[in-house]
Amino acid sequence: MRPNIYKFGELIQDVTTHSATKRTVEGHAQIFDAAFQPEYQDILTTISHLTGKRVIRYLSIIQGADDMIANMRMKRLMFNLTGTCTGGRCAGFNAINAMWATTYDMDHELGTDYHYRMKQWLTDAQERDITLAGALTDPKGDRSLSPTEQDPDMALHLVEERDDGIVVRGAKVMICGVAAANEIFIMPGAGYNESEQTYAISFAIPRDIERLTVVETRRPSDTREQEDGFDIPVEIGGITQAYLLFDDVFVPRERVFMCGEVEYTSKAIVNFTAPYRAAIGGCVAGQGDIMVGAAALMARANGLSEKVFREKITQMIINNETTFGMGVAASALGTAHPSGVWIPDHVLSNVNKVHVATLPYETKRLTQDIAGGIAETGCLPSSQDLRDPRYGHLLEKYLKANSSGETRAKIARLIEWLTIGAGVPGCMHGGGSPSGAKLVVNARTDITHYIELAKRLANITEDIQVEPKK
Amino acid sequence: MRPNIYKFGELIQDVTTHSATKRTVEGHAQIFDAAFQPEYQDILTTISHLTGKRVIRYLSIIQGADDMIANMRMKRLMFNLTGTCTGGRCAGFNAINAMWATTYDMDHELGTDYHYRMKQWLTDAQERDITLAGALTDPKGDRSLSPTEQDPDMALHLVEERDDGIVVRGAKVMICGVAAANEIFIMPGAGYNESEQTYAISFAIPRDIERLTVVETRRPSDTREQEDGFDIPVEIGGITQAYLLFDDVFVPRERVFMCGEVEYTSKAIVNFTAPYRAAIGGCVAGQGDIMVGAAALMARANGLSEKVFREKITQMIINNETTFGMGVAASALGTAHPSGVWIPDHVLSNVNKVHVATLPYETKRLTQDIAGGIAETGCLPSSQDLRDPRYGHLLEKYLKANSSGETRAKIARLIEWLTIGAGVPGCMHGGGSPSGAKLVVNARTDITHYIELAKRLANITEDIQVEPKK
Amino acid sequence: MRPNIYKFGELIQDVTTHSATKRTVEGHAQIFDAAFQPEYQDILTTISHLTGKRVIRYLSIIQGADDMIANMRMKRLMFNLTGTCTGGRCAGFNAINAMWATTYDMDHELGTDYHYRMKQWLTDAQERDITLAGALTDPKGDRSLSPTEQDPDMALHLVEERDDGIVVRGAKVMICGVAAANEIFIMPGAGYNESEQTYAISFAIPRDIERLTVVETRRPSDTREQEDGFDIPVEIGGITQAYLLFDDVFVPRERVFMCGEVEYTSKAIVNFTAPYRAAIGGCVAGQGDIMVGAAALMARANGLSEKVFREKITQMIINNETTFGMGVAASALGTAHPSGVWIPDHVLSNVNKVHVATLPYETKRLTQDIAGGIAETGCLPSSQDLRDPRYGHLLEKYLKANSSGETRAKIARLIEWLTIGAGVPGCMHGGGSPSGAKLVVNARTDITHYIELAKRLANITEDIQVEPKK
Amino acid sequence: MRPNIYKFGELIQDVTTHSATKRTVEGHAQIFDAAFQPEYQDILTTISHLTGKRVIRYLSIIQGADDMIANMRMKRLMFNLTGTCTGGRCAGFNAINAMWATTYDMDHELGTDYHYRMKQWLTDAQERDITLAGALTDPKGDRSLSPTEQDPDMALHLVEERDDGIVVRGAKVMICGVAAANEIFIMPGAGYNESEQTYAISFAIPRDIERLTVVETRRPSDTREQEDGFDIPVEIGGITQAYLLFDDVFVPRERVFMCGEVEYTSKAIVNFTAPYRAAIGGCVAGQGDIMVGAAALMARANGLSEKVFREKITQMIINNETTFGMGVAASALGTAHPSGVWIPDHVLSNVNKVHVATLPYETKRLTQDIAGGIAETGCLPSSQDLRDPRYGHLLEKYLKANSSGETRAKIARLIEWLTIGAGVPGCMHGGGSPSGAKLVVNARTDITHYIELAKRLANITEDIQVEPKK
Repeated sequence: MRPNIYKFGELIQDVTTHSATKRTVEGHAQIFDAAFQPEYQDILTTISHLTGKRVIRYLSIIQGADDMIANMRMKRLMFNLTGTCTGGRCAGFNAINAMWATTYDMDHELGTDYHYRMKQWLTDAQERDITLAGALTDPKGDRSLSPTEQDPDMALHLVEERDDGIVVRGAKVMICGVAAANEIFIMPGAGYNESEQTYAISFAIPRDIERLTVVETRRPSDTREQEDGFDIPVEIGGITQAYLLFDDVFVPRERVFMCGEVEYTSKAIVNFTAPYRAAIGGCVAGQGDIMVGAAALMARANGLSEKVFREKITQMIINNETTFGMGVAASALGTAHPSGVWIPDHVLSNVNKVHVATLPYETKRLTQDIAGGIAETGCLPSSQDLRDPRYGHLLEKYLKANSSGETRAKIARLIEWLTIGAGVPGCMHGGGSPSGAKLVVNARTDITHYIELAKRLANITEDIQVEPKK
Repeated sequence: MRPNIYKFGELIQDVTTHSATKRTVEGHAQIFDAAFQPEYQDILTTISHLTGKRVIRYLSIIQGADDMIANMRMKRLMFNLTGTCTGGRCAGFNAINAMWATTYDMDHELGTDYHYRMKQWLTDAQERDITLAGALTDPKGDRSLSPTEQDPDMALHLVEERDDGIVVRGAKVMICGVAAANEIFIMPGAGYNESEQTYAISFAIPRDIERLTVVETRRPSDTREQEDGFDIPVEIGGITQAYLLFDDVFVPRERVFMCGEVEYTSKAIVNFTAPYRAAIGGCVAGQGDIMVGAAALMARANGLSEKVFREKITQMIINNETTFGMGVAASALGTAHPSGVWIPDHVLSNVNKVHVATLPYETKRLTQDIAGGIAETGCLPSSQDLRDPRYGHLLEKYLKANSSGETRAKIARLIEWLTIGAGVPGCMHGGGSPSGAKLVVNARTDITHYIELAKRLANITEDIQVEPKK
Repeated sequence: MRPNIYKFGELIQDVTTHSATKRTVEGHAQIFDAAFQPEYQDILTTISHLTGKRVIRYLSIIQGADDMIANMRMKRLMFNLTGTCTGGRCAGFNAINAMWATTYDMDHELGTDYHYRMKQWLTDAQERDITLAGALTDPKGDRSLSPTEQDPDMALHLVEERDDGIVVRGAKVMICGVAAANEIFIMPGAGYNESEQTYAISFAIPRDIERLTVVETRRPSDTREQEDGFDIPVEIGGITQAYLLFDDVFVPRERVFMCGEVEYTSKAIVNFTAPYRAAIGGCVAGQGDIMVGAAALMARANGLSEKVFREKITQMIINNETTFGMGVAASALGTAHPSGVWIPDHVLSNVNKVHVATLPYETKRLTQDIAGGIAETGCLPSSQDLRDPRYGHLLEKYLKANSSGETRAKIARLIEWLTIGAGVPGCMHGGGSPSGAKLVVNARTDITHYIELAKRLANITEDIQVEPKK
Repeated sequence: MRPNIYKFGELIQDVTTHSATKRTVEGHAQIFDAAFQPEYQDILTTISHLTGKRVIRYLSIIQGADDMIANMRMKRLMFNLTGTCTGGRCAGFNAINAMWATTYDMDHELGTDYHYRMKQWLTDAQERDITLAGALTDPKGDRSLSPTEQDPDMALHLVEERDDGIVVRGAKVMICGVAAANEIFIMPGAGYNESEQTYAISFAIPRDIERLTVVETRRPSDTREQEDGFDIPVEIGGITQAYLLFDDVFVPRERVFMCGEVEYTSKAIVNFTAPYRAAIGGCVAGQGDIMVGAAALMARANGLSEKVFREKITQMIINNETTFGMGVAASALGTAHPSGVWIPDHVLSNVNKVHVATLPYETKRLTQDIAGGIAETGCLPSSQDLRDPRYGHLLEKYLKANSSGETRAKIARLIEWLTIGAGVPGCMHGGGSPSGAKLVVNARTDITHYIELAKRLANITEDIQVEPKK
């Protein structure tokens, strides 16, 4: 592919070998490896309803509660295997499902052919077995203004519509896993009015498309990846998040899945957030599992049985199972969209988003609590110092406990990486903020119905209304 | 039925009219009413797999995730309709399912005919459409001693085995809904050793069986039920909990479903707790719904829109949906027992028990927070005082806000009843304690697996074990 | 005193013997008893700065951090001794301190003689050693309207000013400890504008003043007080809360401490809430101490060492010490008002109010958790049933564990009384709501200062302001 | 000073200019600058009780509640000014106070002259106005074994006692601020038995003493300090933590303050932890203040008033004031040791340690919540990329909102630094673990007293004891 990814001002020639991207590529590669292992096959692959062939689940349409629960197990598994996020696939998977339903509605209601285009593209994508990232977040600029009230590029938008396709300008920011992806699926934002139709666009592009520049963001402790040694302890997983700069990029017509239908943008977002906010419970559970293991391992390395910390470890497990369970519940109580897509329950998905933005912080705190001062901020010398000929043997000696000093150091680094380092995913705002999720929970709950239940119980017949204040 | 229920030293002649029991009877009666309403039929009834006839769900065998989720909806609905627990049915429902599986195993492994007996009895019970309470908790006495180490009556036990049946002595305590029940299903306790076989007993009896004495317990503010007026605001729901005193009660052979098979008692309890601890999430969600309604109603009565309290109300909804959702998740991830009974996932059920023992306390606190001082401890004069000819009109005047004074008083009483009064169910220890649930969560989680995941990630090969201390 | 207190439509002839009031009188009487015990003398009494004589602390002016801390110790002690609130003294104590400062300011700024009047009255009150309740809360009616926008009686107000005094009409509601008081100190509400001067009134009256009617409110399980037996387990403490109905009550001039100075009402309230919200941390700590004791006692009665519950008991202690400690901190960082009154730190006082409205709920939950199902809702038969000749011996037998059945029953009742019964004080809204406290915390914190600190640290010079939205 | 500090295998020649240490040196330098500012003088300096001269507070003896509260204000101020920990002074300050009391007791009880030596040394240290770090934590090795049961060097110990001094070997680990210090004060560990007297040692040494090697530990994102640009946004503060390797270091007799008095080690530790665990509440409050400012600043930069986030910001303030307040309370309720040292209340100090290990995690979470995805993991390109001639202008454009893009980037980096980066102090285990603090809280609370209060209230006379189990 054409090199178009930068970090620290450097154009990355080969994402599979460059230290800034190779770990996330390695993490994504584990998906392919695991898909061939019999015990994971049903989690990572499924039968395409388009072709009847076995395909990677990330390129499938979710067609029922079982598919959605398998999605959650897949995310938990991939966090188990990589320690962190394989974001180059999840958002893309979610985006194709959201737009599958949305294009279906548009075609049926407006007579467009977007759903047909998507079907063609998806069949082909399954055939090619591509890795697909998804991109949703616009820069937005001043949050109190719409893009038309400030620099219009503050959200990605149409600048020209041609017979053979469209030209777009703007940016998508904080996009996961682009470095490991072959293509990127673009979702529209929402909340636009009739005069802002140019913002209602959705399409799929190759990652190395002309006039697209990708700049990778920093991560905590990311420069350790350029060092030797084990100070970033995980070789087989890692996150990247990128800023995508669209400088009048041309997208061919057959890859465009929305263009101007502003009234469908909110629907598209709702179709996106429900499965995302359910499934992310599997992600944080999967990383939480590793934290349970790492904390217990450090306890042992310190010479203590993990039973000493039973109350805390049980709380960590409760947190993990709560986000996982709430996602399962949202999946189980979902409904089928006419297009065949299964939409998880909105209230339960959004309740889960709130837990996902809260409980992992407690799990991290408990991990640090159990693991002791050495792991809290990774408070030990560098792996380079551990090997220093002058004093490295002393560090090794003083780090030793019920394991070798180096093993203990590696566990501490793993915990640093998980709780305050390069392995921390952005769960607070991934899939939207918890505040946004609370708005959905509130809006989708019929409080008046509960008021009526209360009145019936207490035998109250008076109608009580509050006048809107002047 | 033979009167055998006492409260305050008085033998209750008619449970349907006596002030101490009529509210719970009324609550249970709503089950029958609702079963005939089309919108509730699928929740409250199902098709018997024994007879193919439509039966009340409380007397059915749970045969899949859908049945279990319907069970949760049923509990939430009944709390919605009665404001509190209809415990005369839930524990019985749970007990027949637990013993359906356990008797199946016993018959297959030991060659007994308990499952056959249960089938006969249950077919008949469905035919008669009985209300069935369930009884599990033994007095236990000193918790550090088994019953054989103290007064042997500290758990219900066999005193004589005859050709035609068995004679039992002891007590079951804190048993819900006995006053509204036709029969009681007795579960064994667990944790007995080989020499304690007389404690391994299970059977079903009419509530008014000879030599059984029932003494109702007190509830907060229960004597208000004997007053006129609205100080107990709910006429159509109420709880009772009873101590059952078995003074050498004879149980006919065909109603005995376990007798001496001590190694099956723990299995029976596990079969009981999994669905119980899942489904109770529906109970507390259903009462939480009423709290949302009551709090919003009080806000309006005070002249304020419930929007003022959006953050708090949203948190209440989150709490409700969390216990409901976790129960749904446990249901969805359950497994089928060979007998046909669906057993919810143990880890998720027990995680839910911890939430059930925690979140409703926050929901109550938020209800009191929103509703103001008047509702916090029901801080207003009695309904009798509100009608006093000398000063009642002044109380009515000073209680008035954006509703009549009486309506505001009723809302306050409803909130008192829900949060600190006769409507508070015993969710902390219902279905067992949260500490017990945490033990299950811990025991059923494979921490060693998580340790291995962590080691693989950080490329650690050293085997780290902790020697048990001398 | 003239009987003017009603409950259940009955005029209470003698508050010291009537079952509805005698427990609170008994609780207040313990103050006098304890004041004579050498170990408590420094807590319960102090030297009057007016007369140099030793007086009960409740009638003193708080003149420094030590006095304020002694106030906190006094409240904790009284909750230790009575199990609950002796509200007939705290609010009065607080009110005289608040008005001591406010009248001082009025006299200095307006040339009134209110402070002089208060001095006379207080000197006399100390001499007579009266028990003084305090009254603040007005009925308010519709919370979105001021009293002048609805029925003007919705807050207590002046109806006539005469040479010899004033006539007032309206009500004060939810007033603690009136039944045990000799006099009542009336505080004004706040938030009035210039045209609402008739609401700016403060005065002291005998409890049995002409044309004042007192109606006692209900408490959870309050009718048990009219029974024999131990179902209300505490004889030596209890709360009352009353509605005071002022039907054109005449107050002599020398007892009037504010009359029309509407601009001083907010100041008066702030002077009231700062010490109140600090000191209430001692109250809930004092009741929390009893919960620690009761939970540990029940553990022992069940045959278990309290060490089994160490994690939970420690959390209870942490909660108690946090509300106590925060009150001490507010006291220590207070400032001296020119009148000599010590005003605790506003931010810390109000932070404490938030904890007081939150932590005790967790402490109660933990108490119920430790104590088991029997205590959670007081789930055991009545004391009358325990003595029933037919089956009482069986109840006693089945309640027995590592203590007699009756002792175990009493502990369970104590926990019911503390956590869900007649001993529960109204800490959520006592001294105002936690939402109100949060407003103060926010308003008194200089967020702009913190913004400047952040900018200085990160070397940011740009001025960033947000335009108020149109 | 002699260079003896290493990081990444490099011997640091000049701590004031080397990128790994210059920020912490700069942070410590602010202490001196601030001490000369009139508004901070009373916080940062005090009058020496040894010489009557004004000295830096960090080298003074804490002689009353006011001194201890000033200590808390000083810590909050220094976090306000540096954004993080100036650990090269706090632990040293705490250590001299702890050993001041301990040496006093030794001299009085054993006839030693340690206190006299300390007086000489401290007078001189004040005179020289040194920066003093403190060192407590030993490597410990296997936590289930004492050092004599494993490698004896697992705690620092005496290897030779000579007429003119002692020779010590071992290590102290995770020691703050050594790079900025002139001297280091060594505390003994605790929990040793009579046969482990060589571990009971305390002394003060120059940082560059012969045979002492210092190896600095890593911090999250610490290599950014070696870059240009603002990716570590704070130039004027920073932490270092070091491993001190003692390879038979000789300490002159006059600098030795304990040598073999094993029975005084626990006392020394208790004297150390009480003020430490109180005062650390000021530290986390001071950093929390910056988080309030940074979160509000980011809200503004995003175009939103901080009022939108009032509930969350208020909770952050509550957290800050709670740890600050609890430390103040512990200070206010302290007691004077005969040596003149003021010892804060042990229960309140240790309760505070639990809050310090919990509340800041919530404050960080709320900071990330308010600040949005950009700040959560510092999700934006490097400052180098922002200045890239090819695409830097586009990044600047897309980062712009209600402030310039660069300013917004700096705020995001500040929040990353504070919540998941190089500015995060180790509050979980600083001053010991929260589990250890809970043990103290429990051990110092007289639960039996509370049991007696509960029994008295409920009129229970039965003595209930639990037999220790066999």
